[in-house]
Amino acid sequence: MIRVGNGFDVHAYDPAAPLWLAGLEWPGEPGLSGHSDGDAVCHAIVDALLSAAGLGDIGELVGVDQPGTENAASTGFITTALSRLAEHGWQPVNVSAQIIGQRPKFAPRRGEAQRVLSDLIGAPVSLGATTTDHLGFTGRGEGVAVIATALITRG
Amino acid sequence: MIRVGNGFDVHAYDPAAPLWLAGLEWPGEPGLSGHSDGDAVCHAIVDALLSAAGLGDIGELVGVDQPGTENAASTGFITTALSRLAEHGWQPVNVSAQIIGQRPKFAPRRGEAQRVLSDLIGAPVSLGATTTDHLGFTGRGEGVAVIATALITRG
Amino acid sequence: MIRVGNGFDVHAYDPAAPLWLAGLEWPGEPGLSGHSDGDAVCHAIVDALLSAAGLGDIGELVGVDQPGTENAASTGFITTALSRLAEHGWQPVNVSAQIIGQRPKFAPRRGEAQRVLSDLIGAPVSLGATTTDHLGFTGRGEGVAVIATALITRG
Repeated sequence: MIRVGNGFDVHAYDPAAPLWLAGLEWPGEPGLSGHSDGDAVCHAIVDALLSAAGLGDIGELVGVDQPGTENAASTGFITTALSRLAEHGWQPVNVSAQIIGQRPKFAPRRGEAQRVLSDLIGAPVSLGATTTDHLGFTGRGEGVAVIATALITRG
Repeated sequence: MIRVGNGFDVHAYDPAAPLWLAGLEWPGEPGLSGHSDGDAVCHAIVDALLSAAGLGDIGELVGVDQPGTENAASTGFITTALSRLAEHGWQPVNVSAQIIGQRPKFAPRRGEAQRVLSDLIGAPVSLGATTTDHLGFTGRGEGVAVIATALITRG
Repeated sequence: MIRVGNGFDVHAYDPAAPLWLAGLEWPGEPGLSGHSDGDAVCHAIVDALLSAAGLGDIGELVGVDQPGTENAASTGFITTALSRLAEHGWQPVNVSAQIIGQRPKFAPRRGEAQRVLSDLIGAPVSLGATTTDHLGFTGRGEGVAVIATALITRG
């Protein structure tokens, strides 16, 4: 038994915040706004996993009105989502996510980010990054968008 | 035998039209422009299903030059797409779609929309909704975008 | 063993360049900028295939600093990606891609493009095209975006 799910998330840059993206801190880079740490990669992955399993979305799971979510590490949201999946017998097969934005330069730390998230999820996580030829809000450096796709299975 | 397909659709808001989205009418909300009822969720799902099966796209299936498509309920396009898939032995495994836009506030009717579309498709349909931190055309409230992913199988 | 991957790419129009899109030349149409031939469909497909297999992305595979990539045919990048997958025992199950943009009018040559890319990949490739109701950078005719999803398997 196999299911596919997708997730999408956007956060605007907030130069006053530290940048957390793909489970890593990026010192010296402009951060992303958000109630939590603003990690759009984790958020899109959470939505892809929940959607594949038919278990709602990140807003229901860890909404801004819930205690402990302010400035929270979004890797914790992935752990929470995985628990929900496990309660229903689901486990991830693999996750693929594309980061769309001007910054940070992702390639030098791709391997590190993939290891952190693959270890967290217990299945392969592939991360890529691309720009939009200076077009649109990501091209103007206003924010970052992430598209994630997940495959999950039940034994 | 299993195949994946994706679909994408955008419609601009048309305040003079009733809003149909994800198979539901949304009284009091600005509608979406379009030759049919403008239901971008149904359109993206139709494209994901057809693409997975290699059977063309919504423009070929129910183009604007075809009788009966003006102001048509887009749920009917899903039914038509499923017939095409069935003729070739394909049936949906599951569908996941993310709605990107400022309005309507989707969460309160997520369950209802998922039931309507899951019943229609005969397989689980998961729907999520997100905003873009006021960035881009969806963030400016100009329109709604939908990304859909479908998994289908043949016996 | 099955894996899913997604890919995303954007190129701005460059009226001075010939248009290469989905493995075809489009005489008389404004081209896409890029170090290679700018074929955003091929680029998104390469990223989807590599991401599914956990083998990096197009920037690592055929980066702009590598000899032979300037003005290169992007169909060759797909062949290179498939070789990398094959070295690891992976082969494509199918690929689905949606082209988002005002031009070219894609439907008349959809079948031709699907045949070229399906033959190249050795698995079904489905291509669709949609506009964004004149919204955003694609709607203003500034560029083309492509979302690709790939399923791959290992025997």
